[in-house]
Amino acid sequence: MTTAADDLILGLIRIVDLPGLTAAAGQPLAAEDIEAVVREADRFAREAIAPGWQTADRAGARLENGLVRAPEHYLPLYGQWVEGGWQGLAAPEAHGGQGLPHALWSAVLELCSAADMSFTLCPLLTAGAVELLAHHATPDQAERWLPELVAGRWTGTMCLTEPQAGSDLSRLRARAEPAPDGSWRLFGQKIFISWGEHDLTENTLHLVLARLPGAEAGSRGISLFAAPRLLPDGRRNAVSCGGLEHKMGIHGSPTCIMLFDGAEAELIGAPHRGLQAMFAMMNAARLAVGVQGVGQGARALAMAETFAATREQGGKTIDQYPDVARMLAEMRATTLAGRLLALEAAASLDRARLLKSPEAEARLALLTPIVKAWCTDRGVEAASLGVQVHGGMGFCEDAGAAQILRDARIAPIYEGTNGIQALDLVTRKLPRDGGALLRTLLAEAVLVAPAIGQAAATVEQAIPAMLGAGGPVGASRFLDACGWVLGAAMVARAAAADPAHAATRDIFLRRLLPRAIAAAEEAMAG
Amino acid sequence: MTTAADDLILGLIRIVDLPGLTAAAGQPLAAEDIEAVVREADRFAREAIAPGWQTADRAGARLENGLVRAPEHYLPLYGQWVEGGWQGLAAPEAHGGQGLPHALWSAVLELCSAADMSFTLCPLLTAGAVELLAHHATPDQAERWLPELVAGRWTGTMCLTEPQAGSDLSRLRARAEPAPDGSWRLFGQKIFISWGEHDLTENTLHLVLARLPGAEAGSRGISLFAAPRLLPDGRRNAVSCGGLEHKMGIHGSPTCIMLFDGAEAELIGAPHRGLQAMFAMMNAARLAVGVQGVGQGARALAMAETFAATREQGGKTIDQYPDVARMLAEMRATTLAGRLLALEAAASLDRARLLKSPEAEARLALLTPIVKAWCTDRGVEAASLGVQVHGGMGFCEDAGAAQILRDARIAPIYEGTNGIQALDLVTRKLPRDGGALLRTLLAEAVLVAPAIGQAAATVEQAIPAMLGAGGPVGASRFLDACGWVLGAAMVARAAAADPAHAATRDIFLRRLLPRAIAAAEEAMAG
Repeated sequence: MTTAADDLILGLIRIVDLPGLTAAAGQPLAAEDIEAVVREADRFAREAIAPGWQTADRAGARLENGLVRAPEHYLPLYGQWVEGGWQGLAAPEAHGGQGLPHALWSAVLELCSAADMSFTLCPLLTAGAVELLAHHATPDQAERWLPELVAGRWTGTMCLTEPQAGSDLSRLRARAEPAPDGSWRLFGQKIFISWGEHDLTENTLHLVLARLPGAEAGSRGISLFAAPRLLPDGRRNAVSCGGLEHKMGIHGSPTCIMLFDGAEAELIGAPHRGLQAMFAMMNAARLAVGVQGVGQGARALAMAETFAATREQGGKTIDQYPDVARMLAEMRATTLAGRLLALEAAASLDRARLLKSPEAEARLALLTPIVKAWCTDRGVEAASLGVQVHGGMGFCEDAGAAQILRDARIAPIYEGTNGIQALDLVTRKLPRDGGALLRTLLAEAVLVAPAIGQAAATVEQAIPAMLGAGGPVGASRFLDACGWVLGAAMVARAAAADPAHAATRDIFLRRLLPRAIAAAEEAMAG
Repeated sequence: MTTAADDLILGLIRIVDLPGLTAAAGQPLAAEDIEAVVREADRFAREAIAPGWQTADRAGARLENGLVRAPEHYLPLYGQWVEGGWQGLAAPEAHGGQGLPHALWSAVLELCSAADMSFTLCPLLTAGAVELLAHHATPDQAERWLPELVAGRWTGTMCLTEPQAGSDLSRLRARAEPAPDGSWRLFGQKIFISWGEHDLTENTLHLVLARLPGAEAGSRGISLFAAPRLLPDGRRNAVSCGGLEHKMGIHGSPTCIMLFDGAEAELIGAPHRGLQAMFAMMNAARLAVGVQGVGQGARALAMAETFAATREQGGKTIDQYPDVARMLAEMRATTLAGRLLALEAAASLDRARLLKSPEAEARLALLTPIVKAWCTDRGVEAASLGVQVHGGMGFCEDAGAAQILRDARIAPIYEGTNGIQALDLVTRKLPRDGGALLRTLLAEAVLVAPAIGQAAATVEQAIPAMLGAGGPVGASRFLDACGWVLGAAMVARAAAADPAHAATRDIFLRRLLPRAIAAAEEAMAG
């Protein structure tokens, strides 16, 4: 049996060919170096992050006198994260990062998310803030903020949602007022702000969507601001945590109501162009949330495998019972598919950046909603199967299987619900080229494994309906069908690269692929 | 939009034709009376049970000095349950029950489970104990115990599982030693005992599987005993709660470790025939757990409908967005299908008893694992969709959607995991007649709605594989396929009886039915 780290190494080196990609860009990264980073991340995730996972769930984040306290052991753990230089892995070298490929960062993120999704969500968001600022900050802003964020000395947040504006950001009411010095003062309430306030770092940079005075209504009147928790002179800025949500899972991650009461802020990018800038962060975060889904599936799988290999019933271990073996095989197949799909998307990002490839950029754009939605749905399913494999013990909190399900359940919701991802796919990404790129990906999938043919054909058949009036109705099931087909191709590629995955490929193609057809037919049935 | 109570009334009167069935048996029950009972149960569930549902989740059951305290309001609530005479609804009149059909009891159980699954689990188990004792107790035992259980003054438990014997009961180690007075003393530890100890009633009758001295190993050496919590002279019996499980959901229901330390007990039925007797209780409980799945789906649906009809995004309520409408429609379709499938199974039980019909008995036997597994899997899915409809609020505990998911997740596990149900279907129920009855049910389904044809044909095609070596491997997905096809037929019958369900039928047939084909193909792919 291969481990998650083994599969990530295989994927990075043999499947998305990171050595070849980086060599072509003149920044060669050797296979041994890739393996070394993944092994080290795996060790850190297993030895440093994972052990406190249930403790964090039980303790939860707490609000005390306006200050949020993370689970106790997160403070030293975060110190190790910073010290290990993990935060800057894929950040620009100009700002103190290591400038390594995003695909490698994605692998690190999966391993750490599997170890503790709540903890890893914090650096995940900081990385999104780095991504945004690297593209949209002025050189002066970049110089003041990026080294702090890249090192992990500060964390970053995304302050988007308001009580009346969830999936529909055009209804935002937070506002910015000009200050005499040319900066801005922010007013308003933001909700569901992950790691909005905490005690892991002294400072946090809040990236906030708000309206300038006189801005038009709707999404074109939204601007982006940065407001630090602590001002340069050490004063506390006028931003505070007004409450924590009591959630089903990810208890270790504080989900904050954030109150901006005249907080000093700077405009990022052009006025009224805040949503466009925020998308840089959201796209990075969406890929990363897809990776969280993979991580939760991987953790569920690893725990279920261990349990099933040791738990005896009827004189044999339960992994020898066909139905338990079936559940484990499904978890293995969907987790591997999601892992490789996420690497493929991240490598497209690297290819787009390093090789200035518009084709890779288009692939990334198309794959992002699929990775976010398909991988998180599969993560929840794998977590639920993991509970089932554990039987009655799975429903009890001691085993940990239940926590994975409780934690994983957020991923299809945040960073744009999976319904929003599906709409993004059919109403934005597909129409860009009339579905041409998706047809190419489907054809590539069939080339990899001819058995994918019928499923790919059914998905292709659904494209016209998705581009027409049926799009919004069938979008979610269509996205699901795309994920099954593209995931099948990734697993087939893994089997071609390493015979250890042949059984998983066979199971995916023979047993799971009919789900693509059912989903595509449902999409067309509108 | 019809309510759960509306649909139950339609199902009982027009679909499973309880008035016709009872008239044929010479115990006519009028449509008005059926409606009156369901409406009253609905009122009781909504007004008495439902309001404390979240409080029970938060407070949970607690173990204090060896005594288990249920959530505080359960005590007066249980008093209302007893006073209303609900416990004896379908119990034999000879023992103080009302002797009404099981299908009606099933309807009451759905409404009350939807209101609070934790609370309703207690009377559900008592009803199972009544079922068992009505068949297997001696007249003297029946006279001493049944009136108490039927009235709800005592509760009943099923003490089966032990740490080393979960799905495989043949490994049971609990033992019975003979006492000089001809009774028995029980020794051993039982786990996962729902409502094993509590403060709702003074007495509880534990139904316990254990071995007689010298009994052979395996499942043929298991006998059934009854051990009351309080002995006839008022002394506490030597049975106690050694701990409560900390669970993902149904916090209001105490899940006990029960310690038998020489507990005085009586043998029920013949020595070494305990498993057979326990099956009477388990079959009743399996149907009832399927009904819990329906109830959780119904609660999730009702809450999601209310939320979606009031939550605005982009200037309209979110139920007007196609993807939200899709999720609600799926929840509606699977919940209706499960509700009617469960009624069909319960009516088969009534038909078997009242009309002495072996064909109805066979239908019941075939439908029981399908209702248990398919309805509980759909219940979890509906609960998860309900969370998704609520968006970020669904992940927060205040909304209640998350609790439904946490509660519903136990139903595919207990009373025999859904994997066990699938094995029961393909290795016991199908071979009885080589699949003949299932073929009849499939043919009936196609007669109801010709659009079911292809799906039914695919399921039929899988029958030989299920009867052969592929059975245990494909069982779960085969059961799933059966559920989709039979559920589709039930929804089609509902639409034929009431045009209000036409849209749901269309959605089921066009959008959801392809899942039957995918599941059957996966089953065959073994």
